[in-house]
Amino acid sequence: MKIELLNTGTELLLGSVANSHLSWIGNSLLSLGLRISQQTAVPDGPAIRDALCEAKNRHPDILIVTGGLGPTSDDVTREICAELLDLPLEQDPATAEHIRERFSKRGISLTEPILRQALVPRGASVLPNQNGTAPGLHFPKNLKPGWPEIFLLPGPPRELQPIFENSVAPLLRSRISSDLTARTYRVVGMGESAVEEIIGRHIELQGILEVGYCARLNEVDFRLVGTPSALARWHDRILATLGENLVSTSQESLESVVVRSLAEQNATLAVAESCTGGQIASRITDVPGASAVFLAGFVTYANSAKTSQLHVGEKLLENFGAVSAPVAKAMAEGALLASGATYALSTTGIAGPGGGSPEKPQGTIFFGLAARGEETAVWQACYPYDRNAFKQVASQTALDALRRKLRTSQK
Amino acid sequence: MKIELLNTGTELLLGSVANSHLSWIGNSLLSLGLRISQQTAVPDGPAIRDALCEAKNRHPDILIVTGGLGPTSDDVTREICAELLDLPLEQDPATAEHIRERFSKRGISLTEPILRQALVPRGASVLPNQNGTAPGLHFPKNLKPGWPEIFLLPGPPRELQPIFENSVAPLLRSRISSDLTARTYRVVGMGESAVEEIIGRHIELQGILEVGYCARLNEVDFRLVGTPSALARWHDRILATLGENLVSTSQESLESVVVRSLAEQNATLAVAESCTGGQIASRITDVPGASAVFLAGFVTYANSAKTSQLHVGEKLLENFGAVSAPVAKAMAEGALLASGATYALSTTGIAGPGGGSPEKPQGTIFFGLAARGEETAVWQACYPYDRNAFKQVASQTALDALRRKLRTSQK
Repeated sequence: MKIELLNTGTELLLGSVANSHLSWIGNSLLSLGLRISQQTAVPDGPAIRDALCEAKNRHPDILIVTGGLGPTSDDVTREICAELLDLPLEQDPATAEHIRERFSKRGISLTEPILRQALVPRGASVLPNQNGTAPGLHFPKNLKPGWPEIFLLPGPPRELQPIFENSVAPLLRSRISSDLTARTYRVVGMGESAVEEIIGRHIELQGILEVGYCARLNEVDFRLVGTPSALARWHDRILATLGENLVSTSQESLESVVVRSLAEQNATLAVAESCTGGQIASRITDVPGASAVFLAGFVTYANSAKTSQLHVGEKLLENFGAVSAPVAKAMAEGALLASGATYALSTTGIAGPGGGSPEKPQGTIFFGLAARGEETAVWQACYPYDRNAFKQVASQTALDALRRKLRTSQK
Repeated sequence: MKIELLNTGTELLLGSVANSHLSWIGNSLLSLGLRISQQTAVPDGPAIRDALCEAKNRHPDILIVTGGLGPTSDDVTREICAELLDLPLEQDPATAEHIRERFSKRGISLTEPILRQALVPRGASVLPNQNGTAPGLHFPKNLKPGWPEIFLLPGPPRELQPIFENSVAPLLRSRISSDLTARTYRVVGMGESAVEEIIGRHIELQGILEVGYCARLNEVDFRLVGTPSALARWHDRILATLGENLVSTSQESLESVVVRSLAEQNATLAVAESCTGGQIASRITDVPGASAVFLAGFVTYANSAKTSQLHVGEKLLENFGAVSAPVAKAMAEGALLASGATYALSTTGIAGPGGGSPEKPQGTIFFGLAARGEETAVWQACYPYDRNAFKQVASQTALDALRRKLRTSQK
């Protein structure tokens, strides 16, 4: 089933409003095993006519159009559709009544432009709008020969989304024979090229519609769309190949996996951050329920804070410098001791811009991972990126190290 | 100048990723007095070819294409463009060298697919990418007769945005005869309706192309696009009307204004965070040079951490609860004392989901702001939002309180 989405609205193209319809409708269709083949955004006005004609010529089965159903003069989607399909506009009594009621409730008097929203092209049906005045409209296929099935939906998300869920999705669900579905494998510790190399390129396309990749900083989403049986056929091999690099199969975030694993093991966490500046703590505390496992964060930016909060020896700082393996180790162990947590992560590095030296260039970082009653792990890396990317990769890597540690200790 | 935007990427249509390019590029063009006439999104693969041909037939002056320049097999935008315009692909030595360098720095070996990113269609020029391997590409108009000027940009926003700012925007700016410009007033402490009410609706449109608003959580960007003389005419009145709610006129972030003000006053900062979980520290340390003013963050999530790190009395916690004005006060004062900073901010609240009570519903928060040698300010608010919005509004409000304090102490 080929589905197109047309978003109308000048504000979308000016960047004043993000187009949330694309991702919301895309996601909703995906859960039905359907997807959008193409999406277009055009400003209010005559551009809508051209875009509708072009879309028709691509022969989609279904065309979903958002926006332009309201009462102001720039709302012309309904009228343009009626004109293109040679359909007279007729007032729908139930919709007119619904509009009158809403206005009388709010004590506002009704004007002619407002009642324009009750006009329905002959042959189209009304999709009721609980959260606004303009209803959605549904045009069956070939209402004029050659035209696809069309859904017109109002632009405000809080009006569009209930109409989609209550009227559009049930109609589509009753119609589809396809049982396509999607699965996403979230991977940390390998780049997208490596994921393609070891598994992606080996997927045979029988029953698989698509193999996709979405790369972020030290995180790749590897996605398959296909029939449930094809996905099941590849699942075990993918798990085995990705091994401990696999973070989740449900788009669960790395920090959420860490918090969940800590909770499952009745373990607690403290973090001692220098160069990541609180980002690890903030990501951990983004997860609902983090308070059950997260005890304390020490953002020891200044050397004096490392000494007073984490009891990092002044001699250590003098002899090795704040950005060094011994200091990363002392920070993690100091956080463990001060908080009484089961695990403690530490970071110390040079986020830049500037501040590097030949031996320790900008981007140099040392990590520590202390676990109660165990030898503290310390390792070094270099991320010569801009400040934000440096912090993001560093917090990602620290959290991933803890995830791997928890994975081992669970066994 | 007619500009079209084509976004490629299956993930956009599946709803896994929001299409941030449309609003970001729309906004950037608007500040040059330009706008997007149409935007299209298509999945990776052959649909890109059809979309490029259709766009060409609409005769835009400029076509901006995002995504599909990476190393994996679904990245085919560069190849399709070269094919459509009959241009041979040739390796660009400087780009190949740049890629080799990035990989050798990270100690990763180079594979053939990765070097594919150094291929450049003959006649196109390279737009350097500081934050990734695949460069942007610029095709002059009529490189094949009938084809518009084309920009190909990599999909990741942190790669695309600098390329647009450093290479695309200057080129467009040099080309346009219009002398329109944009000015953005960043406001914290008022909603967008309030900004419209007190100033936006009073702007007379002579010489002004647009009055726009972009609202985030406790932050509004109020934007004027117009001739320099029209913008100058309104500037003083806008400053006077917005008063101390104005954070910056250069889209400088709130945290950057705070860091700069602290540095100007030779002052230092510590933060004591419970419910914001490190986000205030992380935002402060996002600012280059933060190490000159930021001493320490105490993420005291557990009560035991509040006691041990900040010396909040156990009696206080028992009698008033962790979420209370006396504890917010004690946290701020404890952070001031422990760090030796000039100022200390504190937060303690109920981020949710859950955890509220009739007296202290979910979203309740207490803030503290301690300044050396002064009475500590404590205040209460309630943000009954989801967890992420709660943290964002809370960190925004805390930083804004410090900004206002620094503004007063400067006078």
